[in-house]
Amino acid sequence: MQEYLNKIIEDNKKYIEYGALPEYIPELVKANKDALGMSVVSLDGKEYHAGDYQYKFTIQSISKVISLLLALEEKGEEYVFNRVGMEPTGDPFNSMIKLETVRPSKPFNPMINAGAIAISSMIEGRSSMGKVEKLLAFFRQITDNPDLTINENVYLSEKRTGDRNRALAYFMKDVGVIEKDVEGSLDVYFKQCSIEVTTRDIARIGAFLANNGVDLITGKSLVREKYIKIAKTFMFTCGMYNASGEFAINVGIPAKSGVGGGILATVPGQMGIGIVGPSLDEKGNSIAGVQMIRDFSEKYKLSIL
Amino acid sequence: MQEYLNKIIEDNKKYIEYGALPEYIPELVKANKDALGMSVVSLDGKEYHAGDYQYKFTIQSISKVISLLLALEEKGEEYVFNRVGMEPTGDPFNSMIKLETVRPSKPFNPMINAGAIAISSMIEGRSSMGKVEKLLAFFRQITDNPDLTINENVYLSEKRTGDRNRALAYFMKDVGVIEKDVEGSLDVYFKQCSIEVTTRDIARIGAFLANNGVDLITGKSLVREKYIKIAKTFMFTCGMYNASGEFAINVGIPAKSGVGGGILATVPGQMGIGIVGPSLDEKGNSIAGVQMIRDFSEKYKLSIL
Amino acid sequence: MQEYLNKIIEDNKKYIEYGALPEYIPELVKANKDALGMSVVSLDGKEYHAGDYQYKFTIQSISKVISLLLALEEKGEEYVFNRVGMEPTGDPFNSMIKLETVRPSKPFNPMINAGAIAISSMIEGRSSMGKVEKLLAFFRQITDNPDLTINENVYLSEKRTGDRNRALAYFMKDVGVIEKDVEGSLDVYFKQCSIEVTTRDIARIGAFLANNGVDLITGKSLVREKYIKIAKTFMFTCGMYNASGEFAINVGIPAKSGVGGGILATVPGQMGIGIVGPSLDEKGNSIAGVQMIRDFSEKYKLSIL
Amino acid sequence: MQEYLNKIIEDNKKYIEYGALPEYIPELVKANKDALGMSVVSLDGKEYHAGDYQYKFTIQSISKVISLLLALEEKGEEYVFNRVGMEPTGDPFNSMIKLETVRPSKPFNPMINAGAIAISSMIEGRSSMGKVEKLLAFFRQITDNPDLTINENVYLSEKRTGDRNRALAYFMKDVGVIEKDVEGSLDVYFKQCSIEVTTRDIARIGAFLANNGVDLITGKSLVREKYIKIAKTFMFTCGMYNASGEFAINVGIPAKSGVGGGILATVPGQMGIGIVGPSLDEKGNSIAGVQMIRDFSEKYKLSIL
Repeated sequence: MQEYLNKIIEDNKKYIEYGALPEYIPELVKANKDALGMSVVSLDGKEYHAGDYQYKFTIQSISKVISLLLALEEKGEEYVFNRVGMEPTGDPFNSMIKLETVRPSKPFNPMINAGAIAISSMIEGRSSMGKVEKLLAFFRQITDNPDLTINENVYLSEKRTGDRNRALAYFMKDVGVIEKDVEGSLDVYFKQCSIEVTTRDIARIGAFLANNGVDLITGKSLVREKYIKIAKTFMFTCGMYNASGEFAINVGIPAKSGVGGGILATVPGQMGIGIVGPSLDEKGNSIAGVQMIRDFSEKYKLSIL
Repeated sequence: MQEYLNKIIEDNKKYIEYGALPEYIPELVKANKDALGMSVVSLDGKEYHAGDYQYKFTIQSISKVISLLLALEEKGEEYVFNRVGMEPTGDPFNSMIKLETVRPSKPFNPMINAGAIAISSMIEGRSSMGKVEKLLAFFRQITDNPDLTINENVYLSEKRTGDRNRALAYFMKDVGVIEKDVEGSLDVYFKQCSIEVTTRDIARIGAFLANNGVDLITGKSLVREKYIKIAKTFMFTCGMYNASGEFAINVGIPAKSGVGGGILATVPGQMGIGIVGPSLDEKGNSIAGVQMIRDFSEKYKLSIL
Repeated sequence: MQEYLNKIIEDNKKYIEYGALPEYIPELVKANKDALGMSVVSLDGKEYHAGDYQYKFTIQSISKVISLLLALEEKGEEYVFNRVGMEPTGDPFNSMIKLETVRPSKPFNPMINAGAIAISSMIEGRSSMGKVEKLLAFFRQITDNPDLTINENVYLSEKRTGDRNRALAYFMKDVGVIEKDVEGSLDVYFKQCSIEVTTRDIARIGAFLANNGVDLITGKSLVREKYIKIAKTFMFTCGMYNASGEFAINVGIPAKSGVGGGILATVPGQMGIGIVGPSLDEKGNSIAGVQMIRDFSEKYKLSIL
Repeated sequence: MQEYLNKIIEDNKKYIEYGALPEYIPELVKANKDALGMSVVSLDGKEYHAGDYQYKFTIQSISKVISLLLALEEKGEEYVFNRVGMEPTGDPFNSMIKLETVRPSKPFNPMINAGAIAISSMIEGRSSMGKVEKLLAFFRQITDNPDLTINENVYLSEKRTGDRNRALAYFMKDVGVIEKDVEGSLDVYFKQCSIEVTTRDIARIGAFLANNGVDLITGKSLVREKYIKIAKTFMFTCGMYNASGEFAINVGIPAKSGVGGGILATVPGQMGIGIVGPSLDEKGNSIAGVQMIRDFSEKYKLSIL
């Protein structure tokens, strides 16, 4: 497999030039557009890494999967899904239209920005700081990486330029989806998005999901299997922004992308996959990364359908 | 005329029960739902008052006309209309849909909340306080009422519950329509909406507009005639929320309503009209007030078309 | 005035090149893009003509004003406005969005395509042919031009390519706004749009409106004054597609444009104006024509506000 | 299993009263609201039937899966997906909004009405009759039921009241998604929806999909495996109208419902499921049927995630 990973990276480098870095978060434009890396962690403990697998990038929207798991564990299904829906939207990730036009007014799912901000607002804790610490501890546990930290520059950049997310949050406060302090909730969200990772960390998250929420090292169940299933289903139906349907057909495994260029994917019962490639397509997904995982899925016949 | 005003009030009291007080601003629910008053100020200096013309209410959206005039005087047409459009929308006053779906993203006109908040953000001044003082001085001059002040309870109530307006403002900050501090701009907006008036004050604003921006007492021009014309046109095409078209057909004079129950109307070259009636119809206009001004316009054949 | 009309045409020819002919109706692309003409008919019987005032063009959306008058005369206000609203929309003339999103589902006003098709469906008559004959007779009477006919090529072209209008009509049939045969209603609509006129015909319609529905020659009232007022109000608030608000501010008189390049305008109590200039701006209005009428309105201070 | 199927039907009868028959197709209101039946066909050839499995109902939207397969076989992926997208929409099945607001204008997926009508317009054939015959032959082959026919009353009822679908079709004609005769395409669509089936037929379709397009009896491949995968993925992401996301989470297998009360489901490699229950929830899915398949999936742990 190691050889094949190297080949995949070489084969797909050509797509990088057709994408772009996301200009609306100034700090992200400083990323290395040419970076391309991939890691695979299988449930039998093997790890494969290729390309720029040591390249550090911020996790961004991939964090939505983890904060959803934490909110489900803390609040339960009923509380969470009374406030956030289960349906794909077909709209861009930062759209407000359905909040205004569909009754009752609640974000359609936890993978779009509105839904993810609502989820972050549910995390229990006395202060934003406390909530972030808890989230970070959860990330460290799942990735088995005690060194995970927040990239302060990216966090400050998102906070400074996050007015669209602020608009979403205040709208949800107005309709009662967010019950707490808006700025505090946004702070948790901006910080969780700014956690710095490598493809290895992402692949380990994927393996954790593939293993139904059981820690690969300790063998201890960290998240109820039922919630893992929910997270994987959202990844399958809405994980790749408004290209999720196309990805489901062409790749066929649960995945979640972030505008930092990362892609998390999971093959139930088999392995986790982490990819990085900061050059994005117009929907916000890593342009070369999507091709890489498509090749990988075809080669190993990973599609679940 | 005095007699006819008394009659109009009696005739239309019956509509009060079919309306309601606006529940989304808690302080406004404390209004006297049964109040009904009307003032007329003609350009030859005569004044007529009937019913609860001494009843105090907050000016709310009627203030949008005045802040537009001030912004035009301070910034000029080009600056203002590069950031706010000139078109009626057909949408509710607090809608966000067109901000997301129409390019370039700017509020359609200065009479909907988004447009009015953008206008308030343009007022020059070192601080929110300074801007509000300037606006208040302008209101006092136009109404010839040095005692106008802000109702602090209403202001605080709007500020506390103004999350939908906050959402609009942050969206506009994101797309560059609002260039300055969002919370400061909102503060100006919430305060201008909380100015406390009587129907006499409103009728004097109407007379000022009818007199093309010339102060009725001093004879001094306070606002360029061109800008007065712009304000009157907006009142005609978008002054009564998404019932503006119906009002233009049934009443036919420029008018602006507020959720405090007030209606400002102006008959070019003739008179200004102020009405109060806090019980609102579902579009947000004074339910009895609209009927009163309709009767009045028919009786004196005031329609401009 | 004759001299000034000539000057207006010369002054505004320069705008022609920035516009385009409407490509979605193949037959209209054959128009002479450089034509520019203007007629004024005053209520005291004087007529002024300049430029290509003998150029023949199809009336298109300007016909919506006349069919509205006929429907009001035949069916009355209540029937008409139970099925078509009174509000400007801010949307493009062929938009379907509000039909789907706003309850009850009815076209917002008679000046957008959906509303105009609904109005045409209300015209009484045994057959499409009979309805069209009646409409045509009404047009001939108002314009005092017994030679008005339908341009068969344009009609067939619109019928062949009118699928967007068909979509609007079937949607309205589904929600009960259109009660009769859809194809028959569309046939009336396509035919009324294909009536061939000159600027003189249009100016005479404007004079008829300025004269409150009284025939200039016979002195006989053809349409109730109340309905004329309704038509003029719609022209003012929604007559120039989604540039109506801007036109109201910059020009300030009731007007209606058509994609054939025509503009109808009326100055209450004074005169009617007809303009042609087939090169259109992106909203669908004659690009030079809008400038011409703006100059004209400023010169003679015609704005009603 | 037989016993369990009987139990499922008894357990879920209580939901019937909370649903309703679809009133917009008059002929469907004549259905037996209380009918409830279920069939399972496993790949090893076993069949289980319970309740009203002999009840005849029209296939409705379930036919969208089969017409998609036929269009893919005839035209190939590129042709099909140039005209119809791959994304879930979150909107009601008959929505037109995204056709107008998202560029390029094409239906988001083949499971909503717009997409399915576009798919039907692609079927090759000299006449509507010929296309329908071909579709019907394909249905008969897949279900191994040579007696399948069209319910003429339902077909005529849909044709007569199908104005919303007509609106969708003409809109698509206007933007070039439908290239052929609109009424002919609609005729194919209305007829395919009116094919009369039992749960056994539906379960056999599910088994055919579970068997990757290989006929269970002859062992012959009728549809390329790749296309079967595409169909199953659409069923998973958009098969249950705008409740697809919730169904994916709660049930977790590819399924497609129809307003005739049917539900088709497939468990890859294992079995096909057919359910009928004409009482529908507000999204248009069989209200008891959804509960039945949820119980069934939980009992046998069928979820693919």
